[in-house]
Amino acid sequence: MIDVALLGTGGTIPFPDRFLASSLIRYNGQLILIDCGEGTQVSIRKLAWGIRNISVVCLTHFHADHTSGLPGFLLTVGQSGRDRHEPLTILGPRGTQRIVDGLRVIAPHLPYPVHILEIDEEMSYPAKTIFQLNDLRISSCHADHEISCLAYRFDLPRLPAFIPEKAKAIGIPVQKWKLLQRGECVEFNGQTIHPEAVLGPPRAGISFGYLTDSRPTKSLERFFTNVDLLISEGTYGDPADQDKAIENKHMTFAEAATLAKNANAKELWLTHFSPALPNPNYFYRQASDIMANSVIGHEHLSKTLIFPE
Amino acid sequence: MIDVALLGTGGTIPFPDRFLASSLIRYNGQLILIDCGEGTQVSIRKLAWGIRNISVVCLTHFHADHTSGLPGFLLTVGQSGRDRHEPLTILGPRGTQRIVDGLRVIAPHLPYPVHILEIDEEMSYPAKTIFQLNDLRISSCHADHEISCLAYRFDLPRLPAFIPEKAKAIGIPVQKWKLLQRGECVEFNGQTIHPEAVLGPPRAGISFGYLTDSRPTKSLERFFTNVDLLISEGTYGDPADQDKAIENKHMTFAEAATLAKNANAKELWLTHFSPALPNPNYFYRQASDIMANSVIGHEHLSKTLIFPE
Repeated sequence: MIDVALLGTGGTIPFPDRFLASSLIRYNGQLILIDCGEGTQVSIRKLAWGIRNISVVCLTHFHADHTSGLPGFLLTVGQSGRDRHEPLTILGPRGTQRIVDGLRVIAPHLPYPVHILEIDEEMSYPAKTIFQLNDLRISSCHADHEISCLAYRFDLPRLPAFIPEKAKAIGIPVQKWKLLQRGECVEFNGQTIHPEAVLGPPRAGISFGYLTDSRPTKSLERFFTNVDLLISEGTYGDPADQDKAIENKHMTFAEAATLAKNANAKELWLTHFSPALPNPNYFYRQASDIMANSVIGHEHLSKTLIFPE
Repeated sequence: MIDVALLGTGGTIPFPDRFLASSLIRYNGQLILIDCGEGTQVSIRKLAWGIRNISVVCLTHFHADHTSGLPGFLLTVGQSGRDRHEPLTILGPRGTQRIVDGLRVIAPHLPYPVHILEIDEEMSYPAKTIFQLNDLRISSCHADHEISCLAYRFDLPRLPAFIPEKAKAIGIPVQKWKLLQRGECVEFNGQTIHPEAVLGPPRAGISFGYLTDSRPTKSLERFFTNVDLLISEGTYGDPADQDKAIENKHMTFAEAATLAKNANAKELWLTHFSPALPNPNYFYRQASDIMANSVIGHEHLSKTLIFPE
């Protein structure tokens, strides 16, 4: 089970009624923050999932609307009680250390360690796990923006079902079932029993992706294949802004919907709206005509992703 | 005439219903910002005095709650149309250049020049003008905080009244009156006429002060002598927090009120409330019992200061 929430949906400039685009993920008591613009910590407070347990921050890129809240955020995490035994890891493109060092000129002292993981080209697409939080796997893919930019994908795999009948048939004692269930081998009657012997077929896990700021690319389509939820920028709603989208390396609603559809995503949330787009709902059909299960993002839009039955 | 507004009244952490302490000053079409924490640009937008014409930023000190909004603010000023002919000056304690350089790692390109003026000890108390915006004079005094910190005072002097009867008595032609009115000398009948000859006695101007974060000091009392308005931190309302105020180098309401009274300030606005003080009005009498004309600051509390009749 993973909870996902939008903390804001704005691009470029924070507004009184629109926080900058970022997202909070809750999994197994831990929290993951994606991007941290000016005011993100205020939205985190309003959402009330807590701030102390944010152990990972994923930065998509270094534009100020995605990073300017970092120093205040890091200080507030410290004031919330996070201590020297609880490192916080910041993932981001190459150069993250320099950016964080610069911003921390006003937050030099924190009561917990900050680890930086810069994600190189070779760590990126084709997707392999760049960071793992318990069973939740984070992978990344290079996006296509003005500056180096990363898309993120989160996968929570699901073990195959345990078939008690099979275990009984082999005669494995009940106290060994748990290990097999977890996918480990057990010794029994001088034999090594592999979990496959008592488990059912592979089962789909939970996955979702986060993409901003970017043009659509084929790599991104492959990267997001079959996600349950894609949170994607849709900076422009009006198709008349197509040229702007190309020039400024962003997407229209229609482009984001096409990307989601081609990736076979189950659901699309649009976010990162231009300051010139006060009412993104007006252009909803630009997305929904292509990808029926599209949602115009709003502050604290949230969802619990669960394993399918 | 000067307009003064509070943009926020919070210390340490920005909250959904409380912006961080900062202030905006409007004078002669230009704007001066004091401090720029996370979210300050959002409050500026709500206030609607404009952002493009902010030509001076006064930083009191480098703690994040007073500076973390700088990179986003500087970018938004650029997006509002400020250009290469319109420099923006940032005043602050020694070290301001290093702090601004660090924060600008995410705002390296701006369409207008940023000038930094670091204020040394010798430029500070006893007050002399460190910066002048038309006739408005800015001076500073060192405050007493954990790190180097400046209090600011703003003075708009008023010329003495022009006495037409005196000018007529000397026989000065009307077309020369304006120069004398402005305080300049004129030549007439081979004589130099000094403005004192046609002007009345000195007249009080407008003045106000801004102080945060600090303990009260005698220097500050002198620095703020006779201001029309003192905006001062009152981090703690409850007198039971006196020890905390001393330890953390802040003030209680009673201390701020005593400072204002001893400085002979006409009015006191309290600001920079601790996150642990959700309802500062509860402790209002801690201030008003000492300084009757005390006001508990709130978002967008504002006032137009005018020359007295």
